[in-house]
Amino acid sequence: MAETLTLLDYWPSMFGMRCRIALREKDIKFEYQEQDLWSKSPLLLEMNPIYKKIPVLIHNGKPICESLIIVEYIDETWKGKAPLLPSDPYERAQARFWADYVDKKFYDPARKVWGTKGEEQEAARKQLVQALKVMEGVLGNKPFFGGDSFGFVDMAMIPYNSWFHSYETFGNFTIEMECPKLVPWAKRCLQKESVSKSLVDPQKLLGFVVEMRKKFGLE
Amino acid sequence: MAETLTLLDYWPSMFGMRCRIALREKDIKFEYQEQDLWSKSPLLLEMNPIYKKIPVLIHNGKPICESLIIVEYIDETWKGKAPLLPSDPYERAQARFWADYVDKKFYDPARKVWGTKGEEQEAARKQLVQALKVMEGVLGNKPFFGGDSFGFVDMAMIPYNSWFHSYETFGNFTIEMECPKLVPWAKRCLQKESVSKSLVDPQKLLGFVVEMRKKFGLE
Repeated sequence: MAETLTLLDYWPSMFGMRCRIALREKDIKFEYQEQDLWSKSPLLLEMNPIYKKIPVLIHNGKPICESLIIVEYIDETWKGKAPLLPSDPYERAQARFWADYVDKKFYDPARKVWGTKGEEQEAARKQLVQALKVMEGVLGNKPFFGGDSFGFVDMAMIPYNSWFHSYETFGNFTIEMECPKLVPWAKRCLQKESVSKSLVDPQKLLGFVVEMRKKFGLE
Repeated sequence: MAETLTLLDYWPSMFGMRCRIALREKDIKFEYQEQDLWSKSPLLLEMNPIYKKIPVLIHNGKPICESLIIVEYIDETWKGKAPLLPSDPYERAQARFWADYVDKKFYDPARKVWGTKGEEQEAARKQLVQALKVMEGVLGNKPFFGGDSFGFVDMAMIPYNSWFHSYETFGNFTIEMECPKLVPWAKRCLQKESVSKSLVDPQKLLGFVVEMRKKFGLE
């Protein structure tokens, strides 16, 4: 049986972008299936009945859900090329810790920075900037979170770069002023084709966010 | 240099219990250091500056935080004995998915079942029972979540067994009525010395919960 590999995804999703990058880092061909999250497909509901969310990677008919779990699955299944996690157990634990930190600390405040207003928005901006500063401290003077090469934590965090412009626009701050090291880090990541092909134009994303704000009655 | 291994823990913690079980499954000697969470030690603050939470495993001076990351670290560092995660990448992804589900769906409602009252408590009870039923469906007719043997998902979930009696007492429901398969599953897990030595007497935990409810002004 020929191997089949399909990614159920939605173009603005930072979680989907992680999976796209991982698959391209490994140079694996996959079918990209854009999903309509306002009218979920029977395939998505069948493949992720628990959360009903993208991304879902379907490998030979079997689904894998949750972006960081998908990335680890990709790394463990196609071991030969471009290891995504470090080989040393302690370094692996550290990489998992910081990728998990990004999941725990970025998404909710980031969403509120463009999706709320007033005090709620201001509190969210502070939380997001604080989490970004923590990550900038972790990066330090290394080229990548993975050290000399792009790794698991870079992959977990770089999709947010597509969103930064929207956060700055509605949150009234700049990443460059708050976390100057993250700007050249993002540029370094974007030099990789796996990343540049997987991320979304920040201007296009801003247009999407403006549409969403209209939907929420914020514009 | 002699190897040192210390677990910073707090006896009622389900997250700490996971690490205790993992270390005992591997038959690894470790120093258990009980922490006072109302007056956090300089060591805890130094070893987990991000979350300032137990459990922390300190291996030769270097900290690993977050219980599921600690368990994976233990599995990867001491590979020889009693593998905790399956070897197949797809099975590993499934095990990670369900352990993560337990983390996402159990803790918050469980805490509210004993730590709130009225509508909030009732909503929490429903959420907890629903999550328990999902996990009972995952268990199905297998002896363990890991299949024929105790595994990663069993380890993630069995510490809640120590708390079930408290949830039942204050949530006014019984696990046996709602999820009859979970009762013999827990008994099977408790036949393992690694589990029975690591879990806490449900009656002692109920005493702790009563004290906590007094602190919160609920008794």
